[in-house]
Amino acid sequence: MPESSKIKISIIGAGSAVWSIPVLIDIMLKKSLANADVYLMDIDLDRLKLVYGFAKRYAEEIHSTVKFHMTTDRVEAIRDADFVINSAMAMGHSYYERMREISEKHGYYRGINSVEWNMVSDYHTIWGYYQFKLAMSIARNIEEYAPDAWLLNVANPVFELTTLISRKTKVKMIGLCHGHMGFENVIRELKLPKDKVEAEIIGFNHVIWLTKFKVDGEDGYKFLDKWIVTEADKYWKKWRETTANPFDIDLSPAAIDMYKNYGLLPIGDTVRGGTWKYHWNLETKKKWYGPYGGPDSEIGWAMYVAFLKMRLYEIYKAITDTSRPLTLLFPPKPSGEQVIELIDSMVTGTPRTFQVNILNNGSIPGIPDNVAVEMPAVIDDKGVHRKTFPPLPSKIQKYVIYPRMMRMEWALEAFLEGGRDKLFEWLIYDPRTKSTRQVEETIDDLLKMPGNEEMAKHYS
Amino acid sequence: MPESSKIKISIIGAGSAVWSIPVLIDIMLKKSLANADVYLMDIDLDRLKLVYGFAKRYAEEIHSTVKFHMTTDRVEAIRDADFVINSAMAMGHSYYERMREISEKHGYYRGINSVEWNMVSDYHTIWGYYQFKLAMSIARNIEEYAPDAWLLNVANPVFELTTLISRKTKVKMIGLCHGHMGFENVIRELKLPKDKVEAEIIGFNHVIWLTKFKVDGEDGYKFLDKWIVTEADKYWKKWRETTANPFDIDLSPAAIDMYKNYGLLPIGDTVRGGTWKYHWNLETKKKWYGPYGGPDSEIGWAMYVAFLKMRLYEIYKAITDTSRPLTLLFPPKPSGEQVIELIDSMVTGTPRTFQVNILNNGSIPGIPDNVAVEMPAVIDDKGVHRKTFPPLPSKIQKYVIYPRMMRMEWALEAFLEGGRDKLFEWLIYDPRTKSTRQVEETIDDLLKMPGNEEMAKHYS
Repeated sequence: MPESSKIKISIIGAGSAVWSIPVLIDIMLKKSLANADVYLMDIDLDRLKLVYGFAKRYAEEIHSTVKFHMTTDRVEAIRDADFVINSAMAMGHSYYERMREISEKHGYYRGINSVEWNMVSDYHTIWGYYQFKLAMSIARNIEEYAPDAWLLNVANPVFELTTLISRKTKVKMIGLCHGHMGFENVIRELKLPKDKVEAEIIGFNHVIWLTKFKVDGEDGYKFLDKWIVTEADKYWKKWRETTANPFDIDLSPAAIDMYKNYGLLPIGDTVRGGTWKYHWNLETKKKWYGPYGGPDSEIGWAMYVAFLKMRLYEIYKAITDTSRPLTLLFPPKPSGEQVIELIDSMVTGTPRTFQVNILNNGSIPGIPDNVAVEMPAVIDDKGVHRKTFPPLPSKIQKYVIYPRMMRMEWALEAFLEGGRDKLFEWLIYDPRTKSTRQVEETIDDLLKMPGNEEMAKHYS
Repeated sequence: MPESSKIKISIIGAGSAVWSIPVLIDIMLKKSLANADVYLMDIDLDRLKLVYGFAKRYAEEIHSTVKFHMTTDRVEAIRDADFVINSAMAMGHSYYERMREISEKHGYYRGINSVEWNMVSDYHTIWGYYQFKLAMSIARNIEEYAPDAWLLNVANPVFELTTLISRKTKVKMIGLCHGHMGFENVIRELKLPKDKVEAEIIGFNHVIWLTKFKVDGEDGYKFLDKWIVTEADKYWKKWRETTANPFDIDLSPAAIDMYKNYGLLPIGDTVRGGTWKYHWNLETKKKWYGPYGGPDSEIGWAMYVAFLKMRLYEIYKAITDTSRPLTLLFPPKPSGEQVIELIDSMVTGTPRTFQVNILNNGSIPGIPDNVAVEMPAVIDDKGVHRKTFPPLPSKIQKYVIYPRMMRMEWALEAFLEGGRDKLFEWLIYDPRTKSTRQVEETIDDLLKMPGNEEMAKHYS
C-alpha cells in the first residue's frame, strides 16, 4: 500500500449525491486518508458540481485536509489511482421505467429483467447492456491507467458485474453491497444482544443466507423459531398498519416463508427475490411484503424513486443554504457503509472482516470457481484473505443458487456475445411467457425504444 | 472377466417383448456367450412366459446353447450375475397417460414431466417416483448379491438414473440408449459415404450434439449446410406428405432450427427436446415436427403406444403359431443395439467404441464430475476407457446443458428428499404456470390419483 500522503481515490459516478455524500464524509473522518486525493467523476456536470461543492464546504467545516478534485474525464480520475470506487449507473431510472412499461404491455409484469431470485427493480441484468458496457470500460481504463488499483464496485448488478469483470479483465476487484446489514433489523426485532450475536451470511449478492447464527454460543435460530410462534402474527398485524417504508421486509411473511421453505433465513435484498410465488402481481406482493407490496412493486418502487428525488432536493437545499453548517444536516459520523472502512484496512494494514463479493475459487463448495460469491473475508494491506465455508443446504443450492447462477450466465452471455437469440432464450424460459409470438414482439418493441439504438445493434 | 462358460446375464424387465427379443437374438448369435446363463426376470408372468417361450424356441431353431431361465424373483435373477441389464419400467404406459390427463386439466400440456429439453413422453423424471425407486432397488440388489456385476441400464430416464445410481451406490454402471443412431438417418439423407464419416456425439442422454463431423477428412457440416440451402425445402414438402413415422424427425425443421440456433446438429432424441418454442401445442409441434407433431404430441405418442401393442401382438402370434419357424419373422441378425456387443467386448477383451452414459469425471469440461454424460468410450475386459473432449459450445452449455442439468438435479432431489415443496419448485419455474393456485391444485390432483398412494406419502 502507498503511504497515506500519496493515496488517490477515484469515485466514478460521484454525482449520485445520495450515495456519495455519506462516503465522502467517511473519507474525511479517516485519519489514514487525511492527505488523500479524491477524484469525483461523473458525466453529469451539474450533479458533480453539487457533490464537489458539498465536499469542499464540508471539508472546511470539519477542517479536513483531504483534497477533492472534480472531473468529467474518466481517465483523469482513474490514472494512477489506488482505489477506484464505481457507483455509476448508465442511463437513468426513467430509462428503465420505459423498458418496464414496454415489457408490461406484453405481459411481463415489472419488466423482462425481473426473474426468479432477481426481482430487484434496479438490478439490471439482461437489459443492463449499457450498464455492463460502462462497468467493463471502467475496468479497461483501470487495466490501462491504474493496473495496481483496487476496483471497489458498488454499482449493481454486483453479482453479474463482479463475475464479468473478474473473469474478463486483470483488475483486482471487490463487489460491495450493504444488503447484508438487513440482518441488524432482524437482531433488533428479535431483541437479541447485538454484541453477542455471531453470524455468517453467504451466497450470491442479493441471494445471501444466514448460514451461521449463534447468540452467546446458543443456536440463534431457536430465538427466531420462538418469535415466529409467539410474536410474528402480532408483529405483522401492527407492521401492516404502521410501516412507512417499503423496504421494511426483513421479517415480512415473505422472509419467514422463505426461511420455512429453504431452511435458512434470507438476508437483506434476498427477501426481495424468490420465485413468482411472491411476485405474480401487486396483490401477491402485498400479501408477502406488506402494504406497499415491498420495494419492487409499482407502489414501492415509485416511493423509492420519489425518495431519491426528495433526498437530492434536501441535499441541494442544504448546500445552497450557506447560512447553516452542513454538519447540521449531515453529522460527521461514520455511515456504516463498508467501502471506506475497507480502504482504511488496506491502507493501514488493520485486518477486519468485510462482506465481499469475489470469485468463489473454492470458498463455497458446489459453486464453480469462476462465479462471484458474497461472503465474509478478512481484509488488510495484503488484500483479501478468503475463508472456506460448509456447502449451502441442498435445497438452497438446487432451487436458488442454480437458477440464479444460470440467469447470471445468460446475462453475461447476452452481453458478451450479443445476438437476438440470447434475448429469446431469456424469455422462452419465463413463466410469464405464453407464446413465441409474445417473445418476438417484446424483443422487437424493446429494441425499437428510443435510446436503445446501440443495444438493438448488439442484439440484432 | 469370467470365462464364457460361467457367464450369467440377467435381464430385469424382460417381459418388454418388443425390446427383449432383439437382445435375446443378439445373445444367441454371440460365440462368446454360447454357454451363458440368461435369467429373464419380470413381475408380469404372462409376458415373461411369452418371452421365455420365444427364447427357448428360437434357441432350438438356431441350435443355440445359451441356457434361459425365467423367474419373477429379482434376487434369484441378480445373484452372482456378471451383467444385469435393466429395462424395467415401473407402472405401465396407461399410468403415465392418466397423470398426463390430470396435468392437462390444469394447463400442463403433455404433463408436468415435459419440460425444456425433456419433452420425451416416457422419460419420466419428476413424476417417475416409482421408476426411480425400482431402479434404485435393483441397484441395491446388485450391491448385495452381485457386487462385481456391471449394471447396463437401458431403462429411462437414462440421464437421471445413471447419475442417481452412480452417485448413491457402489454399482459399476453404464447407461445405454440407441438414440445416437439417429445420426445414421442423417448420413443416409445427406447421401454421405457412411464408412468415410467420422463423428463424435456428446452431451447428456437425449441432449447430444454432433461435436465432430468429418467426411473423408473434410468438414461434414459443409454438406449439411449445402443440403439446407438446396434440398431442405423439397425434402420437407415431400416428407410432410409421405412420412408414416412420427419419429422421422432427424432432419425436421426442428432439427435444422436447433442446428441454426445452437450451432451443432442435435442427434436422435435430442431433436424431440428444445424449449417450448417447439412444443406449445399440437399446431406448434406440427410446424416443427411434421404431420403428427413428432413422437411426443398427443397424435404421435398414441401412434407409438399403438405400435407397441401391435408389435406385441405380432410376437404373440408368431410364438403361438408353431407351424412356421420364428426365424422367418425374426431373422438371426444382429439388432444393432449396443448392449450385447458391449458385453461381448467385456467378455472377450475386444476393445470397441460404444456410446455410453457414465459420470463425467472430467471428460467434458464445464460439466460437474458427478453428472452423467453421454459420449463415446472404448470398452474392453478392463472396463470403460474414457476420453476427454473439448467443451461444448458456450451457447449449448448455457442454454441447454445448464437448464437440463438443473431439472435433473431437481428430479433427483425430489426423489431423494421427498416433500411437497419439491413438486412446487418444479412447477413454479414452468412457463405453463400462471398462478400459485394452479400449482397447488395440480399437485393435489396428481397425488390423489389412484395408484399414487405411496408417492403421495413421499411428497407429503
